[in-house]
Amino acid sequence: MTPYFVGAFIPARGWRAGVKPAPTFARVLHKRLVKACRSKVCKKMTFSFEILHKSSETGARLGKMHTGHGDVETPAFIPVGTQATVKSLTPEELRGLGVQIILANTYHLYLRPGHDVIAGLGGLHRFMHWDGPILTDSGGYQVFSLSRLRKISNEGVTFQSHLDGSKHLLTPEMAMEIQDALGSDILMCLDECTPYPATHAESLESLELSTDWARRCKKHHEPERGALFGIVQGGMYQDLRAQAAEVLIDVGFDGYALGGLSVGEPKELMIDVSAATLPLLPDSLPRYVMGVGTSEELVELVALGTDMFDCVIPTRNARNGQLFVRRGSINICNAQYRDDQAPVEAGCRCYTCLHYSRAYLRHLFMAKELLAYRLNTIHNIHHFMTLMREMREAIRQDQFEAFRKRFYSERK
Amino acid sequence: MTPYFVGAFIPARGWRAGVKPAPTFARVLHKRLVKACRSKVCKKMTFSFEILHKSSETGARLGKMHTGHGDVETPAFIPVGTQATVKSLTPEELRGLGVQIILANTYHLYLRPGHDVIAGLGGLHRFMHWDGPILTDSGGYQVFSLSRLRKISNEGVTFQSHLDGSKHLLTPEMAMEIQDALGSDILMCLDECTPYPATHAESLESLELSTDWARRCKKHHEPERGALFGIVQGGMYQDLRAQAAEVLIDVGFDGYALGGLSVGEPKELMIDVSAATLPLLPDSLPRYVMGVGTSEELVELVALGTDMFDCVIPTRNARNGQLFVRRGSINICNAQYRDDQAPVEAGCRCYTCLHYSRAYLRHLFMAKELLAYRLNTIHNIHHFMTLMREMREAIRQDQFEAFRKRFYSERK
Repeated sequence: MTPYFVGAFIPARGWRAGVKPAPTFARVLHKRLVKACRSKVCKKMTFSFEILHKSSETGARLGKMHTGHGDVETPAFIPVGTQATVKSLTPEELRGLGVQIILANTYHLYLRPGHDVIAGLGGLHRFMHWDGPILTDSGGYQVFSLSRLRKISNEGVTFQSHLDGSKHLLTPEMAMEIQDALGSDILMCLDECTPYPATHAESLESLELSTDWARRCKKHHEPERGALFGIVQGGMYQDLRAQAAEVLIDVGFDGYALGGLSVGEPKELMIDVSAATLPLLPDSLPRYVMGVGTSEELVELVALGTDMFDCVIPTRNARNGQLFVRRGSINICNAQYRDDQAPVEAGCRCYTCLHYSRAYLRHLFMAKELLAYRLNTIHNIHHFMTLMREMREAIRQDQFEAFRKRFYSERK
Repeated sequence: MTPYFVGAFIPARGWRAGVKPAPTFARVLHKRLVKACRSKVCKKMTFSFEILHKSSETGARLGKMHTGHGDVETPAFIPVGTQATVKSLTPEELRGLGVQIILANTYHLYLRPGHDVIAGLGGLHRFMHWDGPILTDSGGYQVFSLSRLRKISNEGVTFQSHLDGSKHLLTPEMAMEIQDALGSDILMCLDECTPYPATHAESLESLELSTDWARRCKKHHEPERGALFGIVQGGMYQDLRAQAAEVLIDVGFDGYALGGLSVGEPKELMIDVSAATLPLLPDSLPRYVMGVGTSEELVELVALGTDMFDCVIPTRNARNGQLFVRRGSINICNAQYRDDQAPVEAGCRCYTCLHYSRAYLRHLFMAKELLAYRLNTIHNIHHFMTLMREMREAIRQDQFEAFRKRFYSERK
């Protein structure tokens, strides 16, 4: 950034009064602005959320998140790029599939290659060649699901790396620093993901730890370093969820997530807890249900007013041969596809369906060919992106109930 | 194809005398012709080879092979797509890398998914969405290197599948039928790859089997079903190589390959045998050294008049983390690349080098991420394609010795 540019533009307020550049000049300056806004300097100041339309029939809302790395239309599905890559795909392919934001995992990147390494290389966006928004989780979920010998104290959580057994302490403050070093656009508070099942007392204890950590995250977080989301825990107890929401809203975050769902509980329970909790969250801020879900869950949760989701289902299941279609899904290893000339789904416009038969995809999968995982992933992400786009369009037209009806009728 | 079209065009001779369609009509017909020529109907009749320039300093030659699925500039390197896929890449990526022809393995495709399955799905081109030329090996090499309990008789070779232990008999006639069912543009004769080391007597016996099989392949092959190449065996004995070449030329093939090289012998011996044998092959037909090789070997063999190569080196080594550069190669898992901002090779214009650092590639490789294999493969194929293009350009300008000098000086 040139000194001149710094002088002419005040990121927080826009153009300085009285300075009205000639068109060509403005164009040059605009380019520099875009570039600068993609660097650490001012990218984080720009986070905001606007609601464009609310469904009159359901709680669904159409919105847009503005981040320093671009906009995200909501309701949005966030593909998971655990280790700084959405497995098997390039960023260009993700863009082509309509992906606007990805998720990366603090736990994995902290352990390998190290957040310091990534920071030294210019941050996660540059490292992985993705110039869109990135949301990073806090690492909490992985500490509890992947690592060995976890020990929780008020200070934080001590754990052994699942890679080499090395010992680490993760505190709320460190979770902020790691995500900041990565250059995340949306940071998540460190929390404890309450397991299922858990008693009321266990859930309360876990919740209190999470809210205490959330306060410390907020305190340690510099607002200009990115948006910070709080995570509502509380197990499957609606009173605890309400209590958590109240405390977190009091602390004040840029968005609110529901954590500790999709951890083994029945789908109906997950929907019930979400239905009870989502209305307690600020209407004007993004609402994010973490780790969810299936197509049906996305539809139901959008109807309840959810704006964001992340889940490994489209990518992981692709690598296991499960391909999503409007009727449900097919398992490509099934012998019935051996001679099947048809694409995975008739009418699907994804690269995979446009060029390859089920027979070829089955062959690749049976032969454990690398291309199998890639073509399957392309189809599944396209399927999820199409579902989200259709839901957004339905909300825009205030036709969400009609959409939902059609969605279920196709699955019969 | 419409009956009208069939009547108007005689594939072997071109337009029927007196039929001169109006421009618009011609355009429609031309489209149909292209389509038809990509189907089995007339695609194979078009094989030919032309030499565009001969080096005055070396034996190198610049040429072009014409096939029913397009032209191939020679000297050409043929990436290996063993199981109907060049591992991890799409056909579009191969095209973008300058690949003009690929190799597929008869042995693998016969066992899985079955040549009958592929034929039923419209042939290999359609199956794998590659509309360029395909060369298929005969399956002989894999029978000898992969399968269990091989038993050779005059009739053919009985073997057990490496996949499920099932028993199979592969005869020269079947090798032709399988490759024909796949829809190959260039078919290879069934041969026995003489192991190294082998005595003169063993090599002679093996050679006699291969030449007998070659005769049977030729006899069973319908010329309109694709070009058929003979394979010169003979171990490391120049007299046997000469004997094999003489017999095969007498039988008459569309091109000639040297087989049984790069099987463990010293590089110098391989070059010596090639240097002695290549000049014995018809000047006007393509010469193909199978299973070779390293950059140095390609340069030396092009200088000796080789027109075609295939080898798994760029693709397999990519998946093992070895990336080729002008100086030689680097191993991306090396700790020194942990923080390395530089691309694999400065100045390289491949997708990988344009967008990713060595540090990111190392991270992906260490994390066993699928994208690692893909980005590495892109770089290595680009490297080999660039080498071939530079060699062709050097021959065109009659500067091959200057090229060779520069090539070696860069590797110091």
